[in-house]
Amino acid sequence: MHIFLSPSFKSRKKIDKREKMKTEQIAAAEASRAPPPRGNKGIAIVDLVLRVVALLGTLGSTVAMGTTNETLPFFTQFVQFKAQYNDIPTFTFFVIANSIVCGYLVLSLLLSVFHIVRSGAKISRVILIFFDTVMLALLAAGASAAAAIVYLAHKGNASANWLAICQQFNNFCNRISGSLIGSFGGIVVFMVMILLLAIALSRC
Amino acid sequence: MHIFLSPSFKSRKKIDKREKMKTEQIAAAEASRAPPPRGNKGIAIVDLVLRVVALLGTLGSTVAMGTTNETLPFFTQFVQFKAQYNDIPTFTFFVIANSIVCGYLVLSLLLSVFHIVRSGAKISRVILIFFDTVMLALLAAGASAAAAIVYLAHKGNASANWLAICQQFNNFCNRISGSLIGSFGGIVVFMVMILLLAIALSRC
Repeated sequence: MHIFLSPSFKSRKKIDKREKMKTEQIAAAEASRAPPPRGNKGIAIVDLVLRVVALLGTLGSTVAMGTTNETLPFFTQFVQFKAQYNDIPTFTFFVIANSIVCGYLVLSLLLSVFHIVRSGAKISRVILIFFDTVMLALLAAGASAAAAIVYLAHKGNASANWLAICQQFNNFCNRISGSLIGSFGGIVVFMVMILLLAIALSRC
Repeated sequence: MHIFLSPSFKSRKKIDKREKMKTEQIAAAEASRAPPPRGNKGIAIVDLVLRVVALLGTLGSTVAMGTTNETLPFFTQFVQFKAQYNDIPTFTFFVIANSIVCGYLVLSLLLSVFHIVRSGAKISRVILIFFDTVMLALLAAGASAAAAIVYLAHKGNASANWLAICQQFNNFCNRISGSLIGSFGGIVVFMVMILLLAIALSRC
């Protein structure tokens, strides 16, 4: 298709040069593949705020559950009635899971700040999505296992002959029920964070 | 910079036409922004296989838990000893959660097939990551709540005066313990699927 109607040699050379420059520009643009991601900075800032919120929620849950104990004001000759969170292994798991998620959230703040500075980062976002997912599963597991036991403590179960213990340990029950709130709030926040990360990744 | 050394008018016109075509091509390429994503097709196929595996796992869990009941071979005048999954609300939640995840997985197969065909799709991948995350949380909640109760059924809890019921209902206990496997396997598969989706998204 190179049908040039005999332009002078010099003009032909100029045109070649222009075309070469244009091709190089395209190549450079494709190599860096970094069209300025619109709004990714805003998403990264929201992500940072959400991480702090989730951190406070899970930290609150950990402390509330970890410091729960109740000693009843009466006792027999043999036994003093006392309830602590680590009487029930599920609650111990809850505290451990929440502590791990807390620690992870502190570390992930660094990556979140990094994303504000470099809003086009891809690999770090993929890593963050994966670890957020794992932590979400851990948090959901801890919170819902504890919720199952709290439900049992409130209602008991006639078929299995498990009695509700909340009538005796009323304060204890209120405290452990309340400590679930921060954890379930954290789950919702994690979902939103993963969604935001995915949106930011699709814009990179 | 348009210093053309007087080429003939006709040739100038041809060159303009060529440049216009080239500009249009670049514009089209930038508009679709779809440089052929390497390996995304392979990832989409693995994703489809994993979805089928997760579907089988959660379906197995649902059926195993949902059909569990045991009637003990002895009974008193007033009561026949019988254990069913829906005696314990947590197990009902487990069955419901697994059913929902099963239904979602069937629907998501369509999107997964769509990703094999169009390996550069972005928005559908973001949607899939979000719903996978929600379903992962639901599955983890159901599985770990059930696990907490199964643990209690096996070990009991001296502090709360809850006795282990597995000595009486041995078959029932084995069955419900086994039905957790598919669900926990499903959780791991979900995590891998979300990671693969994020990797594919970063390559789009």
